[in-house]
Amino acid sequence: MKTLNNFIIFSTLLLLCITIMNGCKNQTEETKEVTPEPTFDLATAKTQIIAANKTFAERFVAKDSAGVANLYTQDAKFMMNGSPSIVGREHIQSVMSGIINSGISSVDLITIDVWGTENLVTEEGEFALYAGENKVDEGKYLILWKKVDGKWHLFRDIFNSNLPPSVQAE
Amino acid sequence: MKTLNNFIIFSTLLLLCITIMNGCKNQTEETKEVTPEPTFDLATAKTQIIAANKTFAERFVAKDSAGVANLYTQDAKFMMNGSPSIVGREHIQSVMSGIINSGISSVDLITIDVWGTENLVTEEGEFALYAGENKVDEGKYLILWKKVDGKWHLFRDIFNSNLPPSVQAE
Repeated sequence: MKTLNNFIIFSTLLLLCITIMNGCKNQTEETKEVTPEPTFDLATAKTQIIAANKTFAERFVAKDSAGVANLYTQDAKFMMNGSPSIVGREHIQSVMSGIINSGISSVDLITIDVWGTENLVTEEGEFALYAGENKVDEGKYLILWKKVDGKWHLFRDIFNSNLPPSVQAE
Repeated sequence: MKTLNNFIIFSTLLLLCITIMNGCKNQTEETKEVTPEPTFDLATAKTQIIAANKTFAERFVAKDSAGVANLYTQDAKFMMNGSPSIVGREHIQSVMSGIINSGISSVDLITIDVWGTENLVTEEGEFALYAGENKVDEGKYLILWKKVDGKWHLFRDIFNSNLPPSVQAE
């Protein structure tokens, strides 16, 4: 009888040890799981930025200078050749209106590459400007995009022409 | 004697349980510690980029076009007005040599702001070009800097002039 009691106590202690070891293993795995990898996906950001450029081109062709300016952050800089940086959405709208009224009727924007993080992405691209059917300028750009209220906005926008200065549209 | 043996076996099993529980606790703490916070410091990166720009200006004034080109990544793009992007260190050296030989004798580079991460930083800046004592151009730029072998290199470099096209240096 005493031997049976001892056997029961041994078995209980052994089971307790095994249970603790298993619990220990599970706890370690759970601790690893509460540290997730960052979920930012640059390919998704690139798709969103290509879509934002499409919206830019659509608003431009519709002569909607306010709509184009709203794609920039409130404190954005539009860095065009031949002028100091144009700072702020209001001034950018005024310059955009001037460009549209000068006869530039549409713009092509082609994303070459993007680099960055969840809220700031730098885009390299190529552009072309048209007056009706005529291509009047083509060039390259870097845009620093900033996510504001969940949407990508142009924060810094610099570009220049591939054409010799003598034939560039002004 | 048998009672003493049982006592030793009980004690050993209990100690084993306690040891496993403590080991389990320590293991969990260690798992937390192996996930450190990122240590990137943008202020340090800004200081390093300002230093790299100083080196750029020093090599430029020394007419060291190879030295300037070595500050760019092998696959860099130099995106100047009036030409498609100049791609690769070798072509950039050739263009840099041409600029130096055209009479541009020095360049001022002033960092306005930087944004980015450990290996990629976008810089907004202002530049001035001089022929001897005369300022012949001034403008703005965005540079995408890439860390290669622990040092910042120009990876994308786009700039344009603040001056009206009619008076810009070509």
